Amino acid sequence: MSDRHYPTAIGTSDATSISLLGHDLASEVLGKVSFGELAYWLATQRRPSPGQLRMFEAVLVSLADHGFTPTAIAARMTYYSAPDSLQGAIAAGLLGGGSRFLGVTEDTGVFLHGIVTAQEDTSAFTESDWDDLARTVVHSAKAEGRKLPGLGHPVHKHADPRIPALLEIARETETYGPHLALFEAIGRVHPDILGRTLPLNGAGMGGAALADAGLPVDLLRGFALLARTAGLVGHLAEERVRPVAPAIYAEVDRNAVYTEPVLD
Amino acid sequence: MSDRHYPTAIGTSDATSISLLGHDLASEVLGKVSFGELAYWLATQRRPSPGQLRMFEAVLVSLADHGFTPTAIAARMTYYSAPDSLQGAIAAGLLGGGSRFLGVTEDTGVFLHGIVTAQEDTSAFTESDWDDLARTVVHSAKAEGRKLPGLGHPVHKHADPRIPALLEIARETETYGPHLALFEAIGRVHPDILGRTLPLNGAGMGGAALADAGLPVDLLRGFALLARTAGLVGHLAEERVRPVAPAIYAEVDRNAVYTEPVLD
Amino acid sequence: MSDRHYPTAIGTSDATSISLLGHDLASEVLGKVSFGELAYWLATQRRPSPGQLRMFEAVLVSLADHGFTPTAIAARMTYYSAPDSLQGAIAAGLLGGGSRFLGVTEDTGVFLHGIVTAQEDTSAFTESDWDDLARTVVHSAKAEGRKLPGLGHPVHKHADPRIPALLEIARETETYGPHLALFEAIGRVHPDILGRTLPLNGAGMGGAALADAGLPVDLLRGFALLARTAGLVGHLAEERVRPVAPAIYAEVDRNAVYTEPVLD
Amino acid sequence: MSDRHYPTAIGTSDATSISLLGHDLASEVLGKVSFGELAYWLATQRRPSPGQLRMFEAVLVSLADHGFTPTAIAARMTYYSAPDSLQGAIAAGLLGGGSRFLGVTEDTGVFLHGIVTAQEDTSAFTESDWDDLARTVVHSAKAEGRKLPGLGHPVHKHADPRIPALLEIARETETYGPHLALFEAIGRVHPDILGRTLPLNGAGMGGAALADAGLPVDLLRGFALLARTAGLVGHLAEERVRPVAPAIYAEVDRNAVYTEPVLD
Repeated sequence: MSDRHYPTAIGTSDATSISLLGHDLASEVLGKVSFGELAYWLATQRRPSPGQLRMFEAVLVSLADHGFTPTAIAARMTYYSAPDSLQGAIAAGLLGGGSRFLGVTEDTGVFLHGIVTAQEDTSAFTESDWDDLARTVVHSAKAEGRKLPGLGHPVHKHADPRIPALLEIARETETYGPHLALFEAIGRVHPDILGRTLPLNGAGMGGAALADAGLPVDLLRGFALLARTAGLVGHLAEERVRPVAPAIYAEVDRNAVYTEPVLD
Repeated sequence: MSDRHYPTAIGTSDATSISLLGHDLASEVLGKVSFGELAYWLATQRRPSPGQLRMFEAVLVSLADHGFTPTAIAARMTYYSAPDSLQGAIAAGLLGGGSRFLGVTEDTGVFLHGIVTAQEDTSAFTESDWDDLARTVVHSAKAEGRKLPGLGHPVHKHADPRIPALLEIARETETYGPHLALFEAIGRVHPDILGRTLPLNGAGMGGAALADAGLPVDLLRGFALLARTAGLVGHLAEERVRPVAPAIYAEVDRNAVYTEPVLD
Repeated sequence: MSDRHYPTAIGTSDATSISLLGHDLASEVLGKVSFGELAYWLATQRRPSPGQLRMFEAVLVSLADHGFTPTAIAARMTYYSAPDSLQGAIAAGLLGGGSRFLGVTEDTGVFLHGIVTAQEDTSAFTESDWDDLARTVVHSAKAEGRKLPGLGHPVHKHADPRIPALLEIARETETYGPHLALFEAIGRVHPDILGRTLPLNGAGMGGAALADAGLPVDLLRGFALLARTAGLVGHLAEERVRPVAPAIYAEVDRNAVYTEPVLD
Repeated sequence: MSDRHYPTAIGTSDATSISLLGHDLASEVLGKVSFGELAYWLATQRRPSPGQLRMFEAVLVSLADHGFTPTAIAARMTYYSAPDSLQGAIAAGLLGGGSRFLGVTEDTGVFLHGIVTAQEDTSAFTESDWDDLARTVVHSAKAEGRKLPGLGHPVHKHADPRIPALLEIARETETYGPHLALFEAIGRVHPDILGRTLPLNGAGMGGAALADAGLPVDLLRGFALLARTAGLVGHLAEERVRPVAPAIYAEVDRNAVYTEPVLD
């Protein structure tokens, strides 16, 4: 008996009205809340401040597309095979949102959050305090042979152009907080300790910025997936008009080389 | 040889810059373009007017969540089974975005668009002209036993509260065009012909409004899926904190009734 | 109240036993029923005859793999992006199982079944009767500009090597019936009517053979998907040891060409 | 240049022949290899012995269905929403194949394999040797607060009926090896150490048995997914004829309770 109770704070409706997050959809939400704001609100059940919203939208924009990634290729190949099911092609593209390609945002946010919340109080930290903390973090990662998430990029080997742009928005919107402070400090101190300079990357910065903008770190992958859905719709819109999947298929099929078993 | 050419107008990058839709991501896009605007731009490779953008975001907001739909239930059940793979739960929720639950937006847009583009020129149409056209459309659907997409709602039996709100936004933003005009006309004329009054529904209205806002009708399902991704992130955020999937599973499992074969 | 009733004939269990399809799993099913037989039984809730089973397994085997198809490429790209989620990579591969690549089996079965069931009684049909029926079918497809499903193959331009092998098994197992008879007749009569000779293809033959083996035509896509799951596990097993996804990604990424917008 | 080389040992074809795993499909595989055998062969690139094949098929059968699991519910809800896309419903069902519901098979196999391969040579182990090893394993899990995979079942609280059946098949087929020996030993020794008796479960036993039958432990989830695909086709075949998804949707929708925000 007691199981037949399915609580939700998201939405409800009756014959004459629809309520979303406790507000009347028709009179209080439609036309008054941007899609980005609704996404933030749905994920946190809390409305963003204007600054948080602007930072959130900027990060979504920064994550929406990365060109012909493996996930975009998977979505286009799936659309080519099953053009009747757009939802299948988008789902296939999102399913690559795991540890390797879309995971950096989440990994970086979770990593920074763990360190930040383990400090007593960082509100009075100076840049030098953050550098001290960052040195401890980098030394301990080095000692344990762990990689630091959010560092390095295969194309932007020296500097990721999203970094200064996102930092500027964080400052403007007054959402710059401990996650970004620690992330920047790691960027400053790691060369001396690791013996080489890795640029902060945009995916990691996105995780730090979202955490400072009030979003829960264990859902950061969800925001990367939301952003990527917009990118995938774009790829499939283009695939409809000027497909590349047939050429990719032909390339692989024609250059396939049949070999002896390799698994045993 | 000639196959090894994979064209795209979406994005490109080199060691020092990222370009998205022909603009420099860092200096021209980040912080200057909302997530909704980027989604429109990616899907059409054309920037929306301010009015088109406002209409587009309003429709996305209207489609983002519908409570415990079958797709939200599927996403929550999947998250319960595989909490390690948020992307799998979101993909499972999107996979229900087919003909029955998310298809109305696309079906209505495609249906209206087919009729509108078959007319020579509707720019001088009066309400009475639209009513005449709508009568032809409804008569012919009735004669062929076809349902009219976008009419009727299981809960909002008399009036869908999203309809006046979205129409008002269309007029304010000056995006009200032939798809909405024909949709409204069908709403006015069908009771006399069909012998009963069905309300225009919000999903269908979304399709008409997106078409008038300059979005391609054969991608309308993609926008419904984008909107729904935000809703699914919300459902999974809530499922993490206060799950309902175990109660649904228990309800079904405990009330399962084992029967004789039914398929043969 | 009356809704809280979830009937199934598939399985049930209590503290000491598990029942599957009305049989005790431990004593009557495990070790006594092959996986192929169980798949047939689950889909039809009826046990196959030995001949039906042999034909069913042969068709599954014929559909399991087709090399580097777009679906295999999508699965490998997804595994490359998210190696932590094998289920996501298999799901991505199956999502291409739509109208273009895996649909032929279902389309052919449904097409033949529609014609066969529209005949009064075909049990005494001679080859000449089937040829007459096939001529009507091909003429009408030609008149309406419809393609005949199951004809033609991009690689096996003259003859698909699976055709004689599957026909021989159908005869040996005494499952050869009206669907295969009509399919073969279409193969004989179409050249005179269409003015060119297209080989019967293996995917279409699979649909005809499954229908004659007692499987419901509206689930044929499901069997193609089951067969393909085995193939996808094989591709991912190989991808783990000797990946090709990084090379495909590199090929596409390096040869991407950035262009002007094409959608508008 | 060197990237344009996509090797595979799975299959190849030309205008007149298809080769699968180095054998001619038409003359050497079709009708001669069962679907289960092909699945084994594809996953390992090695043909099973008759005993290995019989054990493999028995485990697939044991994993194919578990009634109204969350994954079966997700697949049925998805089919209800999008009946036009069978592949989407099957994919949604498989996406629950993660850590909680389908992961036990893989987790148990990987866990046992790690211990077995860390021993120098177990070929002369007596039951008493296995018990000694199992005691070490259980003590160390207890000390570290880790759960032992493959122990305990929510329904079969005292004994899982699949266990004796699968063990008997392992002995008959002479595939009983170190993984099953260690798994049985853990079943014998854990009550004294943990202070309570948990039954070995069928999913865990499946992992041990597949490992002893020569299958790679890091692909065990793939076999669980293959088995489950057959079960999902069965659920969807039944859903088509006698749906339960509408009743589940109605149950949840009618008993939804709208609450205050819970996330913040």
